[in-house]
Amino acid sequence: MMKLTAGELAQVVGGELVGDSSIILTGPSKIEEGGDGTVSFLANMKYEPHFYTCTASVIIVDRNFIPKQSYSATIIKVDDVYQTVSLLLSQFQKKEDNSHGIHGSAICDDSASIDKTASIGPLCVIEAGAIIEAGVILKAQVYIGANVKISKASIIYPGVRIYNDCQIGQNCVIHSNTVIGSDGFGFAPDEAGNFKKVPQLGNVIVEDNVEIGSNTCIDRATMGSTIIGEGSKLDNLIQIAHNVRIGKNTAIAAQTGIAGSSKIGSYCFIGGQVGIAGHLEIADHTKIQAQSGIGTNIKEKNTKWYGSPAIDYFTYLRAYSEFSKLPELRKKVYSIAKEIEENKDHKEL
Amino acid sequence: MMKLTAGELAQVVGGELVGDSSIILTGPSKIEEGGDGTVSFLANMKYEPHFYTCTASVIIVDRNFIPKQSYSATIIKVDDVYQTVSLLLSQFQKKEDNSHGIHGSAICDDSASIDKTASIGPLCVIEAGAIIEAGVILKAQVYIGANVKISKASIIYPGVRIYNDCQIGQNCVIHSNTVIGSDGFGFAPDEAGNFKKVPQLGNVIVEDNVEIGSNTCIDRATMGSTIIGEGSKLDNLIQIAHNVRIGKNTAIAAQTGIAGSSKIGSYCFIGGQVGIAGHLEIADHTKIQAQSGIGTNIKEKNTKWYGSPAIDYFTYLRAYSEFSKLPELRKKVYSIAKEIEENKDHKEL
Amino acid sequence: MMKLTAGELAQVVGGELVGDSSIILTGPSKIEEGGDGTVSFLANMKYEPHFYTCTASVIIVDRNFIPKQSYSATIIKVDDVYQTVSLLLSQFQKKEDNSHGIHGSAICDDSASIDKTASIGPLCVIEAGAIIEAGVILKAQVYIGANVKISKASIIYPGVRIYNDCQIGQNCVIHSNTVIGSDGFGFAPDEAGNFKKVPQLGNVIVEDNVEIGSNTCIDRATMGSTIIGEGSKLDNLIQIAHNVRIGKNTAIAAQTGIAGSSKIGSYCFIGGQVGIAGHLEIADHTKIQAQSGIGTNIKEKNTKWYGSPAIDYFTYLRAYSEFSKLPELRKKVYSIAKEIEENKDHKEL
Repeated sequence: MMKLTAGELAQVVGGELVGDSSIILTGPSKIEEGGDGTVSFLANMKYEPHFYTCTASVIIVDRNFIPKQSYSATIIKVDDVYQTVSLLLSQFQKKEDNSHGIHGSAICDDSASIDKTASIGPLCVIEAGAIIEAGVILKAQVYIGANVKISKASIIYPGVRIYNDCQIGQNCVIHSNTVIGSDGFGFAPDEAGNFKKVPQLGNVIVEDNVEIGSNTCIDRATMGSTIIGEGSKLDNLIQIAHNVRIGKNTAIAAQTGIAGSSKIGSYCFIGGQVGIAGHLEIADHTKIQAQSGIGTNIKEKNTKWYGSPAIDYFTYLRAYSEFSKLPELRKKVYSIAKEIEENKDHKEL
Repeated sequence: MMKLTAGELAQVVGGELVGDSSIILTGPSKIEEGGDGTVSFLANMKYEPHFYTCTASVIIVDRNFIPKQSYSATIIKVDDVYQTVSLLLSQFQKKEDNSHGIHGSAICDDSASIDKTASIGPLCVIEAGAIIEAGVILKAQVYIGANVKISKASIIYPGVRIYNDCQIGQNCVIHSNTVIGSDGFGFAPDEAGNFKKVPQLGNVIVEDNVEIGSNTCIDRATMGSTIIGEGSKLDNLIQIAHNVRIGKNTAIAAQTGIAGSSKIGSYCFIGGQVGIAGHLEIADHTKIQAQSGIGTNIKEKNTKWYGSPAIDYFTYLRAYSEFSKLPELRKKVYSIAKEIEENKDHKEL
Repeated sequence: MMKLTAGELAQVVGGELVGDSSIILTGPSKIEEGGDGTVSFLANMKYEPHFYTCTASVIIVDRNFIPKQSYSATIIKVDDVYQTVSLLLSQFQKKEDNSHGIHGSAICDDSASIDKTASIGPLCVIEAGAIIEAGVILKAQVYIGANVKISKASIIYPGVRIYNDCQIGQNCVIHSNTVIGSDGFGFAPDEAGNFKKVPQLGNVIVEDNVEIGSNTCIDRATMGSTIIGEGSKLDNLIQIAHNVRIGKNTAIAAQTGIAGSSKIGSYCFIGGQVGIAGHLEIADHTKIQAQSGIGTNIKEKNTKWYGSPAIDYFTYLRAYSEFSKLPELRKKVYSIAKEIEENKDHKEL
């Protein structure tokens, strides 16, 4: 953990310091928690009340922020608090000590090609023909199947399993116990209803700068490749079925599932626990609300969806607000019907 | 597996025996299955028909149960069958033989502190600075990151991965392939829509007496800690995002996901496949029906929720029972409208 | 990868060749991708446009298919394209070289019985009393608990964990990081709301010819067995709770969860992200749409369900199509009510 003074910090982030520039800072803190020697952030005005009581030595605030009460911290005013937070956290981040080389307990096939600047952790298994490029870090207990390629500077956390023939791009991060390249769910029932396995002969290609969370599954293609596009980010416990293609810089939240052969565009935001049926195409910049179920192609860009099956986001919310009043509406309808009936009877008398 | 006579069993559970006290019992059975030498339970009256045909040697029943037909088993009458079942199963449970010490194939950093009464299974990895307290059992192939602390008497099953700096309390149980402390899903898009990773510098704190199922993910905090409160129980395949806090004695069923920074109260019951959005507060004693999606704060204690987005449980059920009759309701409305229109025409003529 | 000529291929699949029978084929391709020396398939007419531009050397088509434009490939006409694809992929599938024997780094208890034709990969752990039958393949880093039985010719992929006393049938396939036999989620709250664990003493029985995806969880029974019936297929990230029983040849898609003690019939199709509550019985041949929540017994065979809670599939779709028009319907009702009121006022004047 690096140490720096408030004055040095203000310089690093290009901010204006109000208070004591000599305070020594040892790490970040949340504004609700603070603590002596830490630096906090007021990024979201919802947290403003904490600003006045926060015990952090330094608080970073927006350049236009005007305190409404007294406060004790030294402040640093910046143009964009969120961006500063991100920059700063990188500064404080501990450099983990990953020594180069292959741990003595790792089991590496002689035909695997492992760059000498790569780090292969304890109890990893690397099968025949695998290629591990420069700067790659495999933490402990990773499995790398035959002919897998892990490109430069990617980090693979403990317990990740990558089946044969899959390819991981540069600067990727894959978290623990994620499985890449297991068989797609392909079974053809015969006339008696017994399933016969459809062999899954393709692979998975994860392009550069992709990050994948823990316990996520990406199935290999039946033929060809399942593809995760450059810069896309996948959370934990996600299911990506065979032959799915995901575009670039798309973010997918936890526990979402995408069925076979669907093509997801670039720059999409897909909430958690979403289900997307198979063989669909989803346009770029689509936004899908958590728990939605997508059952049709989405051809227009920049639309927002909700519901199962999903419809336009705002239409869903409007309809749903009527939904809870349905019993009332039904009563209204039947009382009207009754009134009309009675009027009729009345006239007929 | 211990053996005891029906008479001894009646004494252990404080029950009244009717039948043969000398029968030797070797294990429990389900009332639908029974079997000679076993003890079954009639805890749920739905299973009463099985009571009369059950082949178990002994059946434990409620003190007030009056059989309506003949039956063959010796019975033991108790005040609370469920509680007795739980007590009894503990009696029968095999003590697995966990020899102390560190298996020769485990890879433990010299700077890790491992109590001599702990058991470290084959092919575990323990990184620098980790603390493993007395009586802890790490089954095979576990990963313990740098500076992790596992407190007294906790059991960690095969394939669990605990990232650096996380803390596990006393008497915890964590099942296979669960991941604790992987990075939270934090990425800030730049103007071009490319994601920049927000470093995740916090940790996870699992308090005492927590049990966590298999393949569950608990992400480390961005700053500070993600916290699972004392005595809470988490099922399999659950997603707990960064900076979430869960209170004490809350139970969460399988495949539920809780988004970043939400605070869940104590004594809550959360069903399976529930989604809870980020930055929310959920009051103590809240009950959430399976598959619900919580999108707002829940401030009142002891409420019950259903739907996506979730509303009051009973309101949802009432509205949903109208939902399936919507086509009928619409027809009714349009036939009323038509009738009114015709009446109007009639008058105008 | 085998090589064969187009003529040989036509013979193998019993098809009629139109074109060049001497072309040498080296592997399959998707019709959208093609490629020289590959064989593609036109199984789904949605892909017909690709047929005319496909660069594959051979395309397999339905015997009744009549091209509407010119095309370049040699074609083979068959009775059932889907069935042919499956047959053909098997032909092309690489035989992975699994050498027999126990890898030197595997840790096998002396009391385990391992057939000499079985293959035990690197860094596997096999506990006391386990039985590994003929032709079984354990890939790397698998955990086999005490007294587990793996029957003939089953394949267990890296990182699978099978707890003590569970049984796996013949010809099963279990993909990476799946957990079989971890404790069911059984906790009884005392009066103060503190949970007491109910010991989970049963096991899991996976019958013959079952395939299970990655990161799936099957919990052991409290007593007795959790059972996955012969020939059933489970996808990734599925939750099967304690004492569930699944019939034969039932297919379950990814991320579905089945709560404790429910009995699922044979030949069912259960979509992804479905939730099935506990203690239910689901008849044979039931179809459940993705994301549905089943809350009641399904006694009639061959029914189809949708919604949460699920109702008849078609009833749901009809009602849902009205749902989005609810605001409109409400307006209609209130305008009718207003009109009636005004008419009344009019008359009274």
